[in-house]
Amino acid sequence: MSGATGGRPADVSRTEHQLAPDGPALSPELRALIETGPMAHLSTINPDGSPQVTVIWIGLDGDDLVSTHMRENVKIRNIRRDPRVALSFDGPREPGNWINPYAVVYARATVEPSARIWELMDRHAKVYVAPDAELPVPEGTPPGFIVRYSVTRVGGIGPWVTHPAP
Amino acid sequence: MSGATGGRPADVSRTEHQLAPDGPALSPELRALIETGPMAHLSTINPDGSPQVTVIWIGLDGDDLVSTHMRENVKIRNIRRDPRVALSFDGPREPGNWINPYAVVYARATVEPSARIWELMDRHAKVYVAPDAELPVPEGTPPGFIVRYSVTRVGGIGPWVTHPAP
Repeated sequence: MSGATGGRPADVSRTEHQLAPDGPALSPELRALIETGPMAHLSTINPDGSPQVTVIWIGLDGDDLVSTHMRENVKIRNIRRDPRVALSFDGPREPGNWINPYAVVYARATVEPSARIWELMDRHAKVYVAPDAELPVPEGTPPGFIVRYSVTRVGGIGPWVTHPAP
Repeated sequence: MSGATGGRPADVSRTEHQLAPDGPALSPELRALIETGPMAHLSTINPDGSPQVTVIWIGLDGDDLVSTHMRENVKIRNIRRDPRVALSFDGPREPGNWINPYAVVYARATVEPSARIWELMDRHAKVYVAPDAELPVPEGTPPGFIVRYSVTRVGGIGPWVTHPAP
């Protein structure tokens, strides 16, 4: 898809500032779910068109949904080639429930090399690990990557769904 | 493969017989995780190459990993067109853990029209809902679909990983 819409340059990193602010604002319900620290399943597309999935931390950076990454691994390279991703996460699981709420956030992802990942990861650790968790910022480590998600559609089951499942 | 081998209906896609029986057996660790009833994030590929995700129940049918579906919806149509899927699910979440275990099961999926979905869904409900949950089998409803997963690779974090993440 990269390059397909409106002549996007092959180097996706250059389009970051165009892409990121496009999406609609996250609903309060979706923000609240994200702030509970759900394990987020990130689906990207491999060069051969097959799905690739990693389970990651996500969080809010102002109005944006973001994730942080230390290395330029498979998912980062996949996003650079095709920014269409899905982030899916469960709502709280209640015993006895037949239908468990969940969100599937379809988005265009952009990769930003950034030294701010340590600040964000430290903040996310307080949600995902423990309120007093602290991430020691390693000195002299190279900057990592922030992935920023411009939401195009929210599916799943729950008050955050923007379009019901087809 | 369980009882489906050799008795598969004729109207499934022709590649199934090549694809389905190929996968290695599920490891005891992965079977144990599946038997805890984790919410499974199923990633399929849309006609335009973008990812599609639904969160579903999964379970074992003999030696096979399967899911049950009442309608021929988007994910079923996606699988018929491109059988390469990922099923990802979290291990138990422990407060204070920095790294949460999870599994990503890459598989070739096959769709089998089947009236057995009610029996399987009833069994899955006892895991996902409550040990005494009962699914009333609706009379006169049409058969649904069993999706059977021939595992090609297991990623993630935990003792079930067959190949470390690249």
